Amino acid sequence: MQDDQGIVTAGMVVIGDEILSGRTKDINIATTAEFCTDLGIELKEVRVVSDEVDAIVEAVNTLRARYTYVFTTGGIGPTHDDITADAVAAAFQVALPINPEAREMLESRWRKTGTEVTEARLRMARIPEGADLIVNSVSAAPGFRIENVHVMAGVPVIMKAMLEALAPTLKGGRKVMSVAIKAYVGEGTVGGPLGLLQQEFPDVKMGSYPQMGADRVMTELVLRSADEERLHLAAERVRAMVSDAHAKAGVELPTEQQ
Amino acid sequence: MQDDQGIVTAGMVVIGDEILSGRTKDINIATTAEFCTDLGIELKEVRVVSDEVDAIVEAVNTLRARYTYVFTTGGIGPTHDDITADAVAAAFQVALPINPEAREMLESRWRKTGTEVTEARLRMARIPEGADLIVNSVSAAPGFRIENVHVMAGVPVIMKAMLEALAPTLKGGRKVMSVAIKAYVGEGTVGGPLGLLQQEFPDVKMGSYPQMGADRVMTELVLRSADEERLHLAAERVRAMVSDAHAKAGVELPTEQQ
Repeated sequence: MQDDQGIVTAGMVVIGDEILSGRTKDINIATTAEFCTDLGIELKEVRVVSDEVDAIVEAVNTLRARYTYVFTTGGIGPTHDDITADAVAAAFQVALPINPEAREMLESRWRKTGTEVTEARLRMARIPEGADLIVNSVSAAPGFRIENVHVMAGVPVIMKAMLEALAPTLKGGRKVMSVAIKAYVGEGTVGGPLGLLQQEFPDVKMGSYPQMGADRVMTELVLRSADEERLHLAAERVRAMVSDAHAKAGVELPTEQQ
Repeated sequence: MQDDQGIVTAGMVVIGDEILSGRTKDINIATTAEFCTDLGIELKEVRVVSDEVDAIVEAVNTLRARYTYVFTTGGIGPTHDDITADAVAAAFQVALPINPEAREMLESRWRKTGTEVTEARLRMARIPEGADLIVNSVSAAPGFRIENVHVMAGVPVIMKAMLEALAPTLKGGRKVMSVAIKAYVGEGTVGGPLGLLQQEFPDVKMGSYPQMGADRVMTELVLRSADEERLHLAAERVRAMVSDAHAKAGVELPTEQQ
């Protein structure tokens, strides 16, 4: 939920046996994570669950009570293993009728493409009662929003189009800014002093990311905060700490860093 | 847990704010999913959580009670935001002392590389009481196993090496086999009949994956089962169904499919 400091949070549910078997590599988590960060929404948790109603219901109900928004991907196609709409209807304890607007979106597309209307295809027009549609500009079959839960396709290009479609309906949080600082020493060298600075700046989140496979040792320190002034103050202190570490280790900086 | 039919299950916890912010793209889920599938272990659920002790404890405790194995990735480096060992010790309510064997692994590597022993680096030798070490052939800092929970690094190359190291200690399940069948029609065309066949073969899991962005419409149908005979019987029926759909739609098969 949104608290006094304007923090907006999200949880995500990725639905599909094909992700859990390794057959399909998920890229929707990264897309959603970047989307949330851009809007100032903190993505707090992601769950990948199988194509089982109970598993989906549990994940959706837990996360929708916990966060401002929930995004789900996958399981809204026309086949028997596409059970996301059923599960979300069950989670909200509402009916799952054919939605006339969704049906019209689909049939209008099918008329153009000469696609036969089958019972399987019409499954995609089943929308939980009380939900709004999320337009699918790619393949017409809509997603939907019910309360704070946004149900989207699993096919990445469609999922991305749906995120764009719903962006204007979401309230963003305070924009979190970040500063990245390169330390040309190992993570273990900066770890101690960075930990002390973190204690001094609890409102600036400090992360440390060793770079593997590069020509020389490098650790990227990333500072994140919604408070710009504190962020820059902390960044100054971290830069000074890194300079000390460089001097102590006799590090020669790459030309562009001098 | 392993049931009478030899089903071995797993859950996975991916730990790290950098995944949830979109800064780092996770590839460990796909690696672990493939690893499990190869060993006949069913990966049932993945949770991506932030660098917060409570979030990690909740995920680890829920999944370890639910599945045969739990795999975690991330948060075992030397900096203050690496709190996975702390969280797993808290989840099991055990102490987190410096482990002499882990310390020796690290110091022996550091002697070779001339790396200074710092308090931050020694954090990586803290191992929950009662845990066994998982060897890290890449950068020496070990992972660990406590009961059914396997704690691994987040850096993909190290994580992969750790999975290889622990593979011989895992019991595999019944090997699940799969058959993939190409249908050159839309998912909505095969969805109905496939659903009926799924009802007839509850022991053969049938998935349907539309291929986007290809030259022609194609839906890949994937059948999975631990029962080879039933798998082939089901595959025969699905192939016949697909042939009918091709004939009805006047589909010309690509040369290599005829």
